[in-house]
Amino acid sequence: MKKIFFITGNKGKVQETTRKLLPLGYTVMQKDLGYPEVQADTLEEVAVWGASHVQQRFDGCFIIEDAGLFIDALQGFPGVYSKYVFLTIGLEGILRLLEKVENRKAVFKSVYAYCEPGKKPLIVPGECEGTISTKKQGNHGFGYDPIFLPVGAEKTFGEMTVEEKNLYSHRGKALEKLTVMLREKD
Amino acid sequence: MKKIFFITGNKGKVQETTRKLLPLGYTVMQKDLGYPEVQADTLEEVAVWGASHVQQRFDGCFIIEDAGLFIDALQGFPGVYSKYVFLTIGLEGILRLLEKVENRKAVFKSVYAYCEPGKKPLIVPGECEGTISTKKQGNHGFGYDPIFLPVGAEKTFGEMTVEEKNLYSHRGKALEKLTVMLREKD
Repeated sequence: MKKIFFITGNKGKVQETTRKLLPLGYTVMQKDLGYPEVQADTLEEVAVWGASHVQQRFDGCFIIEDAGLFIDALQGFPGVYSKYVFLTIGLEGILRLLEKVENRKAVFKSVYAYCEPGKKPLIVPGECEGTISTKKQGNHGFGYDPIFLPVGAEKTFGEMTVEEKNLYSHRGKALEKLTVMLREKD
Repeated sequence: MKKIFFITGNKGKVQETTRKLLPLGYTVMQKDLGYPEVQADTLEEVAVWGASHVQQRFDGCFIIEDAGLFIDALQGFPGVYSKYVFLTIGLEGILRLLEKVENRKAVFKSVYAYCEPGKKPLIVPGECEGTISTKKQGNHGFGYDPIFLPVGAEKTFGEMTVEEKNLYSHRGKALEKLTVMLREKD
């Protein structure tokens, strides 16, 4: 078993990542180190910036991840500031902003940065297209999960188990790419 | 005349700052250098972080400023991310989030960082309490000005001249403190 540290405060993300990487022989260990996040236009910038800060303070092999919900009718809002928006106006705020709005398209995006000591981080993105539901559904997952309906599914992320969500989700998609890269590397 | 550089891309802020500092013998010159802004809980953190980045690349005497609108009923949203929120959901989004909301209290906050080469930045905050109007009023100023009614005034910042706005505003208040400090220093 190879050990990989996930630098995050979010237990839900650790759980999803563990389920994907465990079959590949990776034990994922949560480490809530904290690192600065830059105000940027893209998740990639936030991830690269964060990874270089963690590398200065931590010597092991680690991943960090940044994710966001980009809503079409709101010019990409809440985007890279999804966490802050969730903690302030919340799901109710998002539903209110979309009241009577026909175009409910949205994309969930995730970017992992995989880092080995002394090496440039590997950046792996993943996306999941979907729509915003008209009300909260389900209490699984976290964040915007109860209002996000992925394309091809008949329920929200909030109504799915971790395994089901991983089949569709932005993080699941990014982790699939990452696992291919890790397999090729070994 | 002493020269001071204002590192910003916002002409409206330069105009307000010029009108306050000119009578004190300072010429304000805009310099749109750009600097990273960190995702943080307070404007102070953003300003300190930004100032130290500019100091690494610029040798003159300069100021930077960060401002935000903190709405009571929305847990401080849009706060430190006011610019991003303005560019995505805009004033219409804010008015929608506050539809039928009785508590319309808000605070406009500003933080200036004044920097001389090789010295620690001087951090100067200013605040202006007010309420959010129920519709847009006026087309002066910028950003949230047309929906912000300062306490003691009968019109929004969007309906005021630069001079009037400076009497009430968060930036005006911060600049008053800064001018006292600059006067004492000389």
